[in-house]
Amino acid sequence: MKKSIITVSREFGSGGRIIGKMVADRLGIAYYDKEIIAKVAEKTGFAKEFIEKNGEYSPSKSIFAYAVVSRDRAGSSMNDYIYSVQRKIILDIAEKESCVIVGRCADDILSGDDKSLHVFIYADDEAKIKKIMDTHQVSEKEAVKLMKATDKKRSINYNYYTDKQWGRAHNYDLCLNSSELGYEACADIIVNLIKA
Amino acid sequence: MKKSIITVSREFGSGGRIIGKMVADRLGIAYYDKEIIAKVAEKTGFAKEFIEKNGEYSPSKSIFAYAVVSRDRAGSSMNDYIYSVQRKIILDIAEKESCVIVGRCADDILSGDDKSLHVFIYADDEAKIKKIMDTHQVSEKEAVKLMKATDKKRSINYNYYTDKQWGRAHNYDLCLNSSELGYEACADIIVNLIKA
Repeated sequence: MKKSIITVSREFGSGGRIIGKMVADRLGIAYYDKEIIAKVAEKTGFAKEFIEKNGEYSPSKSIFAYAVVSRDRAGSSMNDYIYSVQRKIILDIAEKESCVIVGRCADDILSGDDKSLHVFIYADDEAKIKKIMDTHQVSEKEAVKLMKATDKKRSINYNYYTDKQWGRAHNYDLCLNSSELGYEACADIIVNLIKA
Repeated sequence: MKKSIITVSREFGSGGRIIGKMVADRLGIAYYDKEIIAKVAEKTGFAKEFIEKNGEYSPSKSIFAYAVVSRDRAGSSMNDYIYSVQRKIILDIAEKESCVIVGRCADDILSGDDKSLHVFIYADDEAKIKKIMDTHQVSEKEAVKLMKATDKKRSINYNYYTDKQWGRAHNYDLCLNSSELGYEACADIIVNLIKA
C-alpha cells in the first residue's frame, strides 16, 4: 500500500484535528483544515466566516426541510456552488502534494484515489464533552448542546453530498475510537500504515 | 490500555476469522469461534448444527416479521434462550482467560469490560466475493447471494439483541477494512495495541 494522502473525518470533540496534525508533523507533510476555507474564500470572493459556516455545515436547514427541498431548487444552489469549489480545491491539493486533509467530505471526494487513506476518528461521549468543555471553555450543558448540534450538521452535510451514511465504518479504510485508544496510538497506527 | 480480550465482529468474506486467528496465535492466547457453538450445544442439549443456525443468525425471520413480533412472544423464546446461554458462556470465557472471540455479539456482551478491545473487520465487496468464491468453491453469482444473505442475517441478529446498528463505527474501538489494509496489517495493528 502506497498512500500519501490521509483524509480525516472526525466527530466534534474527538481530537481528530489534533491527531491529523500529529500525523502531518510526524510524516513531514502538509496539513489542510482551515487552510481550505481560505482557499475557497479567495476563489469565490466570500468572507472566510461565510465559507466556514456553509462549507462543512451546509445544508444548514433541518432534516425535514431537506426532505421537501430538492438539490436543484433555488436556496440550495449557493451551498452547492461552495461545495463544488471546495471539491475542486481538494482534488487539486491531492494531485499536487502529500498531505492530511481534515473534514469536508474529502474521504468521499477522494474515494476513487488509490493513494488516499481514509480515516474516521470518533470517541465516547464523555471524553468528547470533557474535551469540548476544555477547548471552548463552556459548561457541560453547553458542551453537550454544541456536540450534538455540530455533529448533526456535519452528518446532514455528509449524507447529503455523498449519499452515504456518516459514521458507517464502510466509508473509511479505518475507524479509530480516540478515547479508547488514545491520541498517540491513533497517530501511531496511521503513521505506521503510511510508512509500511 | 491493558486489554487481554479481543472481540472480532466481521463481515462474511472479510477474513475476520483469519485475522482473529492470526492475532490469537501471535499473542499465544485462546481463540473462540466454533468452540462456542460446542459449548452452547453441550449446555443446552441441542445439536451443534442447530446452534450454528440459531446462535448467530437468529432471529431468522424477515425484518418485516420483526416489526410485528415482539421479543416476548412465543417463537422468539427459543432463540432468546440460546442467546442467553451463549451470552453467559462468553462472559465466563472472558472472566477466565485472555482470548480472541469471533462474532456472536461479543462486542456488545463485553462492552462494559475494560480489558476488552472490540474490533470490526470489513472489506470491499469485490474482495469479499473473491474470498467467498475461493473458500466455498461457488460461482460469483452464488458468492454474492451468500454474502448478502449471511450479512443480512448477522445484522438482523446484531441489531435485535444489542439495540445497536451493525457496521456503525461507534460500536467498536477500531474498524479495519481488510481489503484496503491487508490481513497482515490488520493483525499487526491489533497485536501492537494489545502489546502496548
